[in-house]
Amino acid sequence: MKALRLEATGKLALREVERPDPGVGELLVRVEACGICGTDRHLFLGEFPSKPPVTLGHEFCGIIERVGDGVSGFREGMRVTGDPNIACGQCPECQRGRVNLCHNLQATGIHRDGGFAEYVCIPQQKAFELPLALPPLHGAFCEPLACCIHGVDLAEIRTGSSVVVLGGGVIGLLVVQLARLAGATKVVLVTRSEEKRRVAERLGATANADPSVGDIVSRLTAHDGLLPGGADVVIECAGVAETIEQAPGLARRGGTVVILGVMPQGVKVAIEPFDLLFREIKLVSSFINPFTHRRAAELIASGTIQVEPLISRRIGFKEGVEAISNPARKGEIRALVVPGID
Amino acid sequence: MKALRLEATGKLALREVERPDPGVGELLVRVEACGICGTDRHLFLGEFPSKPPVTLGHEFCGIIERVGDGVSGFREGMRVTGDPNIACGQCPECQRGRVNLCHNLQATGIHRDGGFAEYVCIPQQKAFELPLALPPLHGAFCEPLACCIHGVDLAEIRTGSSVVVLGGGVIGLLVVQLARLAGATKVVLVTRSEEKRRVAERLGATANADPSVGDIVSRLTAHDGLLPGGADVVIECAGVAETIEQAPGLARRGGTVVILGVMPQGVKVAIEPFDLLFREIKLVSSFINPFTHRRAAELIASGTIQVEPLISRRIGFKEGVEAISNPARKGEIRALVVPGID
Amino acid sequence: MKALRLEATGKLALREVERPDPGVGELLVRVEACGICGTDRHLFLGEFPSKPPVTLGHEFCGIIERVGDGVSGFREGMRVTGDPNIACGQCPECQRGRVNLCHNLQATGIHRDGGFAEYVCIPQQKAFELPLALPPLHGAFCEPLACCIHGVDLAEIRTGSSVVVLGGGVIGLLVVQLARLAGATKVVLVTRSEEKRRVAERLGATANADPSVGDIVSRLTAHDGLLPGGADVVIECAGVAETIEQAPGLARRGGTVVILGVMPQGVKVAIEPFDLLFREIKLVSSFINPFTHRRAAELIASGTIQVEPLISRRIGFKEGVEAISNPARKGEIRALVVPGID
Amino acid sequence: MKALRLEATGKLALREVERPDPGVGELLVRVEACGICGTDRHLFLGEFPSKPPVTLGHEFCGIIERVGDGVSGFREGMRVTGDPNIACGQCPECQRGRVNLCHNLQATGIHRDGGFAEYVCIPQQKAFELPLALPPLHGAFCEPLACCIHGVDLAEIRTGSSVVVLGGGVIGLLVVQLARLAGATKVVLVTRSEEKRRVAERLGATANADPSVGDIVSRLTAHDGLLPGGADVVIECAGVAETIEQAPGLARRGGTVVILGVMPQGVKVAIEPFDLLFREIKLVSSFINPFTHRRAAELIASGTIQVEPLISRRIGFKEGVEAISNPARKGEIRALVVPGID
Ligand SMILES: NC(=O)c1ccc[n+]([C@@H]2O[C@H](COP(=O)([O-])OP(=O)(O)OC[C@H]3O[C@@H](n4cnc5c(N)ncnc54)[C@H](OP(=O)(O)O)[C@@H]3O)[C@@H](O)[C@H]2O)c1
Ligand SMILES: NC(=O)c1ccc[n+]([C@@H]2O[C@H](COP(=O)([O-])OP(=O)(O)OC[C@H]3O[C@@H](n4cnc5c(N)ncnc54)[C@H](OP(=O)(O)O)[C@@H]3O)[C@@H](O)[C@H]2O)c1
Ligand SMILES: NC(=O)c1ccc[n+]([C@@H]2O[C@H](COP(=O)([O-])OP(=O)(O)OC[C@H]3O[C@@H](n4cnc5c(N)ncnc54)[C@H](OP(=O)(O)O)[C@@H]3O)[C@@H](O)[C@H]2O)c1
Ligand SMILES: NC(=O)c1ccc[n+]([C@@H]2O[C@H](COP(=O)([O-])OP(=O)(O)OC[C@H]3O[C@@H](n4cnc5c(N)ncnc54)[C@H](OP(=O)(O)O)[C@@H]3O)[C@@H](O)[C@H]2O)c1
Ligand SMILES: [Zn+2]
Ligand SMILES: [Zn+2]
Ligand SMILES: [Zn+2]
Ligand SMILES: [Zn+2]
Repeated sequence: MKALRLEATGKLALREVERPDPGVGELLVRVEACGICGTDRHLFLGEFPSKPPVTLGHEFCGIIERVGDGVSGFREGMRVTGDPNIACGQCPECQRGRVNLCHNLQATGIHRDGGFAEYVCIPQQKAFELPLALPPLHGAFCEPLACCIHGVDLAEIRTGSSVVVLGGGVIGLLVVQLARLAGATKVVLVTRSEEKRRVAERLGATANADPSVGDIVSRLTAHDGLLPGGADVVIECAGVAETIEQAPGLARRGGTVVILGVMPQGVKVAIEPFDLLFREIKLVSSFINPFTHRRAAELIASGTIQVEPLISRRIGFKEGVEAISNPARKGEIRALVVPGID
Repeated sequence: MKALRLEATGKLALREVERPDPGVGELLVRVEACGICGTDRHLFLGEFPSKPPVTLGHEFCGIIERVGDGVSGFREGMRVTGDPNIACGQCPECQRGRVNLCHNLQATGIHRDGGFAEYVCIPQQKAFELPLALPPLHGAFCEPLACCIHGVDLAEIRTGSSVVVLGGGVIGLLVVQLARLAGATKVVLVTRSEEKRRVAERLGATANADPSVGDIVSRLTAHDGLLPGGADVVIECAGVAETIEQAPGLARRGGTVVILGVMPQGVKVAIEPFDLLFREIKLVSSFINPFTHRRAAELIASGTIQVEPLISRRIGFKEGVEAISNPARKGEIRALVVPGID
Repeated sequence: MKALRLEATGKLALREVERPDPGVGELLVRVEACGICGTDRHLFLGEFPSKPPVTLGHEFCGIIERVGDGVSGFREGMRVTGDPNIACGQCPECQRGRVNLCHNLQATGIHRDGGFAEYVCIPQQKAFELPLALPPLHGAFCEPLACCIHGVDLAEIRTGSSVVVLGGGVIGLLVVQLARLAGATKVVLVTRSEEKRRVAERLGATANADPSVGDIVSRLTAHDGLLPGGADVVIECAGVAETIEQAPGLARRGGTVVILGVMPQGVKVAIEPFDLLFREIKLVSSFINPFTHRRAAELIASGTIQVEPLISRRIGFKEGVEAISNPARKGEIRALVVPGID
Repeated sequence: MKALRLEATGKLALREVERPDPGVGELLVRVEACGICGTDRHLFLGEFPSKPPVTLGHEFCGIIERVGDGVSGFREGMRVTGDPNIACGQCPECQRGRVNLCHNLQATGIHRDGGFAEYVCIPQQKAFELPLALPPLHGAFCEPLACCIHGVDLAEIRTGSSVVVLGGGVIGLLVVQLARLAGATKVVLVTRSEEKRRVAERLGATANADPSVGDIVSRLTAHDGLLPGGADVVIECAGVAETIEQAPGLARRGGTVVILGVMPQGVKVAIEPFDLLFREIKLVSSFINPFTHRRAAELIASGTIQVEPLISRRIGFKEGVEAISNPARKGEIRALVVPGID
């Protein structure tokens, strides 16, 4: 079968490899689509550790081709989304229920062969059924959505809250929808691209702002701004120093800042402790998807969360090599590798 | 009566002023002791805003001399501790229950005449009875203890947790005791002064460390350190850039950092977002004493929290002027102004 | 001015009384509407304690006619809704922030003159501005909505949750809307009246059920029921033994039951501890509106929560006497006393 | 090897069976001690479902005799305690992190061969190291302690809280200690046996009461009682209707009741909804040990929780048959089967 293999840092190739066999308790899934995420680019560049040679791709869905021994509840022909993150169950973090912080986390598409391939094997505990009636590409959004659900859970949004979302990529645009769903009645998306701001409006953002014009913090929080005094919750989804430094200032007294965006390791940003303390701002970070993938699958399956507007490109394996080896195209929200294209 | 009056920035004087009359719902309290806190020095230096001319002193206790009209539940002769912070009840923060973040907070000893005087007037809602059998100076520790209780509540310590406390002043030494009380089985106090580390040991710290020797973070969290992998909870009680920057590194994956220490306004410190995110460190700040003063009074009254070892000096009003106008003496934990001395 | 006075148990009369003067920090409000609630009937019947002679009415809104001394932030001509519940600030519950449990709670319309009158006086801390553009009767729903917000907060609904609401009165129909707003994607209203089920559908309930047909618990939670295995959250809004006993059975493993409905004092219902334990059902009760009235005012002001369909009758004072002295009419959701009618 | 086998309801026998071999990822443990718990008696009587023929015993510890393939972090000769509860990882409850509510829970000693034997096999994820220096029987208390930790976590005890514990068996006496550890400054144990009340005193209870004398609720909560107005937290550890019905009345306004005791299936008790609502009492139940076994092992290992006073009898296998087939002896706290005795 075809697979996009990371063979070493900076070396990604389309290869013909053997189709895997599902082990005990595993499902062999014929991939329908697999999203290209910033993490794939980090892995390619060696900025995040992986275990080459390995097939990349951790945002995938597909149809069960074959089930291994000991599988129950799944049958050939079912559609599933896979949660890539496999916790060990044995380290202190697993044993206190913080499975996303597992010391021995193994991720499909990073440490074991992933979804940029015609087939992928996953443990049945990491598979979640999706309806066959669903448009086949939608399932590839379950993984990023599961991460966003975790972040929005941490935000503890209450009915009537106001939320600022910083960054209008796929994460930001899912968070906008989740924030509305969670009861926020004001959701302001801040992103530079005009196009993404338009998408956000369609997805439920009540307002938008372009951070490149003037000082976004004072503009939004001013007496006559969109959110006088700041927002109840600020969710950072850009992963750049600028937005992380802006985030506390956009929160109101007693507000919460949730960081979803990933900065490079070792890079520091500046915060003002006095301001955090006198206004008692809570600063939490959200890492991947503990116990949220099933909820993601359900929200995608029911169409509650819209993902169609987030699909920028459908590409084949060959184009996939290029797409992963280079930065995302300007304005692109999500490109998906779809086996069969090309 | 005698009172220490802040008359302008940098101008503090012992004055003879008129004894106040308790208004409706107020108590006139004969002060038994009033602690000198870093905040008093900030007020003197104009680093925190106040409303001179005003009598300073917000950590006080005493005996009710007279009760105003409409007072119920209090009588002359009772001993009380006063919570200095008076919220307006009407701003958005008060009306969402975040009274410590009140937009119109009025504090006794900052905005209205305080406890460095022979008498002080306080609203009955801000008075809490203490037993007459209690050593008279102990009540002056209720206010800082109430702040620490709030911080330790935010830390969500569970039975069997490990805690690092940074800074061995009065706040750190109260937090050490509260952390033990809250179920932490390992409590490590980090402070430079040998003497304070000895006091901490007597108060329940299970270990101590001197931060001036080597790199405290790697030393404590190393495989063979006191807290391999870090502590469940880190409570910053020094209020300096160094400790705030160290705090996240001292926390384990999934750990919580609580900042109690106050840095000067405008000063920034550096954090590493990647580290906070991948280890999902929660960073919260604790500001004063919302709904905790009564609990503080009870823990002092019952002797559960020890304060005798925290009393470094008992001084009169005259010496008070000097003590407030200058930095704390080396090794001093708490100096108290005691009317009648001198 | 006209006022509906409870003069003794069972003795309610329309009287001409003197218009009150706003005291210090008080607002005199010209009443636009005041809802008749089950509590008013309990007070009339002496089933809940009150302090006759007193003007009833605790769900009111109106226009500020005059402001007392010391009022800030309010002016004549503003529209406000009043939170009737005035906590003492001094009892142990107030001082731990549980103000709705205040030992000395004084409620406008129960212990002090209320809103079934041409004018009512309220403390400024208990007034919340509403836009003048709002239909004048809507503000009368802030009080019940604030109670429902508290209940729904306690339910800790997360995005994608399922919720059963038992009872389709004004409380149930507000809770249906709040549950949707809070992120529930399935909200099933259970009430006997066909008409109320239709209203619920218009207000966002995703399904309905008539409890009088068969066994509602097994019907809803069966494999082929609306909520196989039960709901994440069950909110009881009927206040009858039947629904309280049904509630745990309607919850899924690990689910939460919130009781908003008020049963008569002393009456007991049966629960099965084994079932609560093995399925770890959480059972919480929600009492009035701690720190939620401002949020209610905002949700009404913005039209996020719809109240127009909840208005069954607009009546004058004279009809009000009758309406309060008798049970609610069949199918009636909320009757409002509107000064000027009749 | 010797093993106590449940062969059918009411049929328990000491048998010679083959020593098991550790499977992949499993440990073969030479049992040092295994506690006899009420659950064993329920299994014997067929009151709880099990899968005979099976070796009973779920509260065990021992020395690793052999490790299966794929085991890491464990070696022969280590001492371990085993968490008996094995969740499937695949049902909705597992996938939302509520592993104790797993639909397919498999428990060692109930569904798979347990600890009343010379050897037992357990998955490495369910093993937790204990120091070799620990008295060998102490490890048998990790399992009940882990259940109690879960219950005490749910109680959300804060520093300075008051707690009533109902029932002075092994659960109650562990909960007394945990409540103190969690910061409760008043812990009142209510149990009928004088002897158990004495043990409780030694273990940290600040007071005791005999429920057979007069009305325990009014006695404790009266103005001049041990806990005027009630306790912040009530933890039910007796599992009888009487104590479950008493529990809410023992809680103060805003208090929490945690039920740990197990009543028979189908049996109902009466609660008063009015009282729960007007005093906003929270009623939660605690089922087994989600993510708490490691903490239990640490608290036993460090001696923070004392278990020596809870050991009533050490018996051999033969006596074990009798002990399990009959009710606990009067005054007995915990009897342990110790291989090698007899
Ligand atoms: N925590 C987790 O579990 C998790 C999971 C998945 C992804 N992530 C991280 O989340 C972040 C977002 O992921 P993504 O896939 O949505 O990436 P993305 O497409 O790169 O989105 C980030 C967006 O932020 C916007 N942006 C950049 N600078 C900005 C600024 N100064 N102010 C406002 N917006 C700015 C950009 O849009 P404009 O050009 O419109 O400004 C960009 O599209 C990444 O850092 C990713 O690594 C985290
Ligand atoms: N959040 C609140 O509500 C609240 C309330 C009250 C006070 N505070 C703040 O809490 C902080 C502590 O108050 P305090 O009264 O205890 O003040 P303090 O006496 O000044 O105590 C701070 C201690 O930190 C230690 N320290 C300084 N640098 C250190 C370092 N690099 N590493 C470790 N320890 C260091 C010092 O002791 P050594 O000389 O032994 O190092 C010093 O005594 C202050 O910033 C105060 O403003 C906050
Ligand atoms: N906790 C608080 O803070 C708070 C605040 C306000 C009100 N309350 C209480 O909340 C409850 C509801 O208030 P409300 O104003 O909405 O009163 P309501 O109009 O009496 O509504 C209750 C509804 O429950 C329905 N019902 C009766 N028996 C039922 C059953 N067996 N199954 C399903 N539904 C049933 C009835 O509608 P059908 O005829 O359609 O069945 C009735 O309209 C009352 O008990 C009230 O005292 C509590
Ligand atoms: N939730 C869980 O995860 C979990 C885990 C383990 C056990 N449990 C359950 O927890 C309960 C306690 O377990 P255990 O091993 O400690 O059992 P136990 O030894 O039977 O202890 C219960 C004690 O309650 C006391 N008691 C009985 N009636 C009482 C009354 N009316 N008032 C006060 N005390 C009364 C008895 O002592 P006196 O004779 O002194 O009154 C008895 O010793 C059992 O129901 C057990 O099934 C639950
Ligand atoms: Zn792990
Ligand atoms: Zn305020
Ligand atoms: Zn009160
Ligand atoms: Zn399961």
